[in-house]
Amino acid sequence: MNISSRHVEELVDHFASLPGIGRKTALRLVLNLLKRKEEEIELFSKSLGNIKSKICSCKNCGNISDTEICSICVQPSRNKKIICVVEDIRDIMAIENTQQFFGVYHVLGGVISPMEGIGPNDLNITSLIDRVKNGEADEIILALNATMEGDTTNFYLFRKLSEFSLTITTLSRGVSVGTELHYTDELTLGRSIVNRTPFDMEPVRK
Amino acid sequence: MNISSRHVEELVDHFASLPGIGRKTALRLVLNLLKRKEEEIELFSKSLGNIKSKICSCKNCGNISDTEICSICVQPSRNKKIICVVEDIRDIMAIENTQQFFGVYHVLGGVISPMEGIGPNDLNITSLIDRVKNGEADEIILALNATMEGDTTNFYLFRKLSEFSLTITTLSRGVSVGTELHYTDELTLGRSIVNRTPFDMEPVRK
Repeated sequence: MNISSRHVEELVDHFASLPGIGRKTALRLVLNLLKRKEEEIELFSKSLGNIKSKICSCKNCGNISDTEICSICVQPSRNKKIICVVEDIRDIMAIENTQQFFGVYHVLGGVISPMEGIGPNDLNITSLIDRVKNGEADEIILALNATMEGDTTNFYLFRKLSEFSLTITTLSRGVSVGTELHYTDELTLGRSIVNRTPFDMEPVRK
Repeated sequence: MNISSRHVEELVDHFASLPGIGRKTALRLVLNLLKRKEEEIELFSKSLGNIKSKICSCKNCGNISDTEICSICVQPSRNKKIICVVEDIRDIMAIENTQQFFGVYHVLGGVISPMEGIGPNDLNITSLIDRVKNGEADEIILALNATMEGDTTNFYLFRKLSEFSLTITTLSRGVSVGTELHYTDELTLGRSIVNRTPFDMEPVRK
């Protein structure tokens, strides 16, 4: 692209470094920003510049937080003895949105993936084991993504955790709510028959 | 979304205000930024904060520029007597990329669109007329998008400009290069038969 301003070019490069944003999209964003008011841009720029200094990881669980301990770990109504292990902060938000979980979390920060060179030591596994050793947990829920890497990590964690006396559970796998059976893949449908559950009139707490 | 940090929430809001970016994408961008180094974020934030003060419109043509007169208007090799009227800065880049145009530009900043409440007075038309009045132009090329609004604006400009003694041209419309005829819409194909041109062995200057 032939951008006639070095400053625009620079900002386009920054936006284009973000995941899923190419140079054409980045240029569209910058041109949109150019039409905004000075104050609005200033707020955006300040908010961006602050993230490294103002946002930290919760010391307990690794969730993003403005304070040392995150708003979930701090809540007295939460059952601190049930720890839900997730890959990513977005998974916490997804589970929180269901309003069905009242324990606390532990963010791994990824999953074991030899293809991408991510081993167990690159994840927050030691801190999870420490929490278990300190007797913080009665139950660990392995809530990783249903992918090959997620399953590998589940297996690794299960082996590490099985020496402690606690319950280890995982998310139930099965047919999605609202799905038509003949569209479900064989593996999922097969698992959901093998792992069939007692019929429940009210499966979701309101 | 249940974001456990007010600062992240704030930055997500800023990103989500950009065109084509929803709150989920914005969150993905922010989480990606959180993993970057402090210095990188600082550069991004600075570059963003600078755009209003460091980038201006070229006094001549309205192109984005770091200086009062843009890099295209300043080039001595350019034919200043041929002015290509475009809607948007991105159109300049598209035409520059063809390496087939050696005149200068005039950015309208939009097209006439009664639906969106954009009239002739909202566009840089007066400055175009001024350039013509000052005898700056021998030829005006109307290079607006081939849409209803673009055609309306072309027509308006043609009426305004026809009182001066200059050549008014527009981009040729026809079948795209590399297109199969039976996929071309009737309107385009019809126009390209009516406006057929003498056969040329070398249609593009190299």
